[in-house]
Amino acid sequence: MKRFDLPTPGFSFELHATLGHARAGVLHTPHGSIETPVFMPVGTAGTVKAMTADELRAPPLDAKIILGNTYHLYLRPGLEVIEAAGGLHKFAAWDRAILTDSGGFQVFSLAALGEIDDDGVTFRSHLDGSKHRLTPEVSMNIQRVLGSDIAMCFDQCPPGDAAADVHEVALARTTAWARRCRDAPRATGQALFGIVQGGVDTARRRRHMAEITAMDFDGHALGGLAVGEAIEETYRVLDEVAHELPAERPRYLMGVGTPQDLTRAIAAGIDMFDCVMPTRNARNGYLFTSGQRVNISNHAHRADFGPIDETCPCATCGTHSRAYLRHLFQAKEILYARLATLHNLTFYARHVRQIRERILADGQPA
Amino acid sequence: MKRFDLPTPGFSFELHATLGHARAGVLHTPHGSIETPVFMPVGTAGTVKAMTADELRAPPLDAKIILGNTYHLYLRPGLEVIEAAGGLHKFAAWDRAILTDSGGFQVFSLAALGEIDDDGVTFRSHLDGSKHRLTPEVSMNIQRVLGSDIAMCFDQCPPGDAAADVHEVALARTTAWARRCRDAPRATGQALFGIVQGGVDTARRRRHMAEITAMDFDGHALGGLAVGEAIEETYRVLDEVAHELPAERPRYLMGVGTPQDLTRAIAAGIDMFDCVMPTRNARNGYLFTSGQRVNISNHAHRADFGPIDETCPCATCGTHSRAYLRHLFQAKEILYARLATLHNLTFYARHVRQIRERILADGQPA
Repeated sequence: MKRFDLPTPGFSFELHATLGHARAGVLHTPHGSIETPVFMPVGTAGTVKAMTADELRAPPLDAKIILGNTYHLYLRPGLEVIEAAGGLHKFAAWDRAILTDSGGFQVFSLAALGEIDDDGVTFRSHLDGSKHRLTPEVSMNIQRVLGSDIAMCFDQCPPGDAAADVHEVALARTTAWARRCRDAPRATGQALFGIVQGGVDTARRRRHMAEITAMDFDGHALGGLAVGEAIEETYRVLDEVAHELPAERPRYLMGVGTPQDLTRAIAAGIDMFDCVMPTRNARNGYLFTSGQRVNISNHAHRADFGPIDETCPCATCGTHSRAYLRHLFQAKEILYARLATLHNLTFYARHVRQIRERILADGQPA
Repeated sequence: MKRFDLPTPGFSFELHATLGHARAGVLHTPHGSIETPVFMPVGTAGTVKAMTADELRAPPLDAKIILGNTYHLYLRPGLEVIEAAGGLHKFAAWDRAILTDSGGFQVFSLAALGEIDDDGVTFRSHLDGSKHRLTPEVSMNIQRVLGSDIAMCFDQCPPGDAAADVHEVALARTTAWARRCRDAPRATGQALFGIVQGGVDTARRRRHMAEITAMDFDGHALGGLAVGEAIEETYRVLDEVAHELPAERPRYLMGVGTPQDLTRAIAAGIDMFDCVMPTRNARNGYLFTSGQRVNISNHAHRADFGPIDETCPCATCGTHSRAYLRHLFQAKEILYARLATLHNLTFYARHVRQIRERILADGQPA
C-alpha cells in the first residue's frame, strides 16, 4: 500500500492495488474515508433527489460522498442562506464528504448565456431570468461558502463537436482560470481538483494535462467527455490518457455514465465518478439489474411479483415487487421515485464495489 | 375495562375509560390492536403518499391502521393484479390493519356520473373515461379481494346542501344497500361497518341510525358530515348523535378533519378518523404545530434554522430546519413531501394520543 499526502491538509490518497491501469484505493477527507473507485450520487439542490441522508448512509448503499451543484445552490436557496446555516453539510444535514462542481457546466448547459469572456461568464438564471456573473473567483467563493470537502476549478467545457479554434480558446481560458481558482481563498479543509479539457484530440488533451497537472491540485478530473461525441471516442480518449494523469492523486471522470462506461473508465485508470443517470433513470422508470435493464412501465410487469433484481440486497428489492413498483409508477406516486432511486443507486454502488474487489483480489498490491 | 366481542370472529372492542362522551379503547383486529381514539392515515392508491411502511410503523408515528380506497385500487392496478398478489396487505407490503372505504364517496366526487339507480351507480373512470358499475355486491367483492380488515358498506352520500327529498331517497337506498352489503360474501377475518347518513337534520339521522344499528355491524360510521355544511352544523350533529351510536361498537367519523375537529368529535364520542388533510396539506406546504400552523413557503422561514415544531419528536423536526424544508419546497424536491408528510402525520398521531391519555387520566374507568 502506498500513501500519498495531498497538498491540502487533512487529505491523503492510498493506493492499495492495481490491475492493469485500474486502481483500488482510499481517499481520506475531513468528512470520512472513501474507497475508490467510487460512484458519487448527485445531490443537485442540496438533496439527492427523493433520498434522505439516512438512506444514503445505510448499507448496502453506504454512500461516502455526494455531489452538490454550485450553480443550483447559488441560485436557490442562495449563498446568504447557506452561509447562515454554516455551510452545505449543516444545511442539508449530511455529515459525510461533499464534492461541489464549479457551476461552469450548468452555466453552459442550463442558463441563457449572455457572454463568455476571458474573465468569466455572464448568464441569466434558468429559474427567473435574473442576470448573474460567474468568474473563477466567484465560483471559488461560492464553493468556499458551501464548504464542500472537494471544490472543482471553474472551467470552460466546449461541446463534443466544437471546432479546433473553439477548443484552443477554451483550453487557454481553463488553464488561466485554474490558476486563479488555485490562488483564491478556500474553506479550511477544502481540497481543489483541476480539470483537464481538450475534447477527443488526445494530443490537445495531453498538452492541457501538462498545464493542469503542473499546478499541484489535490486531484485531477477529465472534463468534456461524454458531451456528445461517439462513445467509442470517449473510450479511446480514456484508454489513451486516463492512466497518464498523476498516479499519486485521485482521478475523476466528470458526469459519466452507464455501468458499462464506469467499467471501461476504471480499467483505464479512473477513480471517481458522478452522473445523474441512476437517479434520473429511476424516476423515469428505468431500473438497472444484473440482467436486462427494466422498463418498469412495461405491461409485462403488471402482475410480476418478483423483485426488480433477485440478486440485489436493497430494501426495495427485499420488500417490493415489480408489480407494486409498476403500479406506483403508473399512479405517479412519490413512493415510486424513492424505491426506484434507492435501487438504482444501490446498483451503481455495488457495481463499482465489485470492480474494486476484483482489483484487490486479482491485481498487484501497490 | 369492558370487552365486547364484535360479530366478526377475530374482532373485539375494549372500553378502558370514558370522560363525558369521550372514550379510550382498543380495537383488536387480525392484523393487530389499535388504541382508540385513532387517526388513520389515508393510503389512497396502495401507499400513504410519500411514505414507506417502515416509516408509518416507526414510533413516534406508529400507525396501527391505514385506509385504502376501493375506487382507486379497483381502477388501478385493478382487481386481477391485487388478487394475484394475494390481497392489498401483500401487494403493498403492509402487515398492520387496513380499512377500505366502499368506493361510493369517490364515485360521487371524482367520477363522471352516468346514473344512480336503486341497484347501484354507473360511472366513468376519472383516469380514462371507461364505463364501470358499482353496486353493493360489486363493492363488497372488491373489498373482499382487497382483503381489508374492515370493509365499509356501499352508501349514497348526498351533498351538504341537498334537499330533503334527495336525502330521503339516499337514506332509503343506503339502508337497502347496507342490508345487501351485510349479506354479501366477505374475506375471512373481514369486519364490516355500517354507515349512518342523514345530513344535518338530527331527527333524520336518528331515524337512519336506528335502521343501520339494527343490522349488527361490527362498527358504525357517520358519513355525510363535513361535506359542505357550516362547521358549527357538523359539531351540533356530532354533539347530538355521536354518543347515541351503540357504545359497545367502534364509532367512526368519515373524512374528518382538522385537529380541532378531531378534538370536538372525540368529545362527542367518536373513536376513529381518517382524512387526507395531514398528508395533502403537507405536500401543499402547510405544516401543523403545537402553535400556529406553518406555511413553509413564507419568506420568514428563509433563514430560520429551527425545526417546524420544537416539541415534535418526528425525524423531520429532529434533523431538519424550516429553512431547509422551505428550500426543498421551493425547489419542488421529492424529499420535501416525505419530510413534511412524516411531520404532519406524527402531529395527528400525537394529537389523538394526547387526548386518549387525558381520557385515561381524568376519566372514569369503564
